[in-house]
Amino acid sequence: MKTEDLIKQVAFIKEIDKLKYIQRKTKLFNSDRPENDAEHSWHLAMMAVVLAEHSIQAIDILKVVKMVLIHDIVEIDAGDVFIYDTTKNHHNTEEELIAAKRIFGLLPENQAKDFLALWEEFEAGETAEAKFAKTMDRFEPLLQNTSNNGGTWAEYDVPYQKVYDKKVAMKAGSETIWNYAENLINESVEKGILKK
Amino acid sequence: MKTEDLIKQVAFIKEIDKLKYIQRKTKLFNSDRPENDAEHSWHLAMMAVVLAEHSIQAIDILKVVKMVLIHDIVEIDAGDVFIYDTTKNHHNTEEELIAAKRIFGLLPENQAKDFLALWEEFEAGETAEAKFAKTMDRFEPLLQNTSNNGGTWAEYDVPYQKVYDKKVAMKAGSETIWNYAENLINESVEKGILKK
Repeated sequence: MKTEDLIKQVAFIKEIDKLKYIQRKTKLFNSDRPENDAEHSWHLAMMAVVLAEHSIQAIDILKVVKMVLIHDIVEIDAGDVFIYDTTKNHHNTEEELIAAKRIFGLLPENQAKDFLALWEEFEAGETAEAKFAKTMDRFEPLLQNTSNNGGTWAEYDVPYQKVYDKKVAMKAGSETIWNYAENLINESVEKGILKK
Repeated sequence: MKTEDLIKQVAFIKEIDKLKYIQRKTKLFNSDRPENDAEHSWHLAMMAVVLAEHSIQAIDILKVVKMVLIHDIVEIDAGDVFIYDTTKNHHNTEEELIAAKRIFGLLPENQAKDFLALWEEFEAGETAEAKFAKTMDRFEPLLQNTSNNGGTWAEYDVPYQKVYDKKVAMKAGSETIWNYAENLINESVEKGILKK
């Protein structure tokens, strides 16, 4: 039974290696090298561990870490969608759900169910853990873009209001982090790396 | 107080981005592209979550995940040492300890202490969590090398006995995973991708 589980788990472990090839639009800090989804997921997991004290609500940190570790795995099949791309739907696309079922479905049945539920909880963004996980997911590219002279904001001509409208959701996860982020956004306007 | 913490935490979050530039000798699955330490750490965290049921002893999964997320951060200053390089010491080098103190030292004081202690616990390899974390760290490159026609074993002419002697430590974390790994090693000899 344990060995049967392990064989399925190894198949999943091999499959998710593909996340290392999915390039994001956002670049590494002080860099023009695009970040890939595996690096991004590691960084969010570190951020969740380091920043947990700032969550508004009490959170199960392991649950948040699991969420950010797996949140982009669907992109192995469905690809990365740029957050400011207005031509595409970002949430719960049929394509992403099919991807989640295929990839998590490689795992033993109960584990597959748990991972699918965790990914859906993240996507829905309603629980304390999902809110904090999403705050991490919004915070990392903000830090990267401000370290990169505007980064993707400059590259894709994204104006202040669009950035603000996406980032303000961070407030639901952490007031402290949102206050810091809002200052960074305002400073970016003052520095001329984000257009108002 | 919270904002003071956050400023230090953000400095740490920016600093650890450098882990994405540290190349390992081991290549991605079915690939000749070297893996970097951030990708490796993400993969180990996923493996710890997925494979936890196979631990011999009861483990605190969050602790294991934290360990594997941070275990290579010292390499930002100290560099990656190839496991089969016999000219270098792999454990608790003075250089790594200095690196740990500098990098974790960017965090608020109590958090810095916790992270340093966690890294030292991993390095010592004596607790149930450290043993399981180390089993993950041994298992991933074994899966990669067998998917890569011998990978670094072939590239650096590493013989069966050396591989066996390094990998057998996995047994202390999980009998089930070790049995699977031992079979993979034996199969590799049969296939001629590992020399006896």
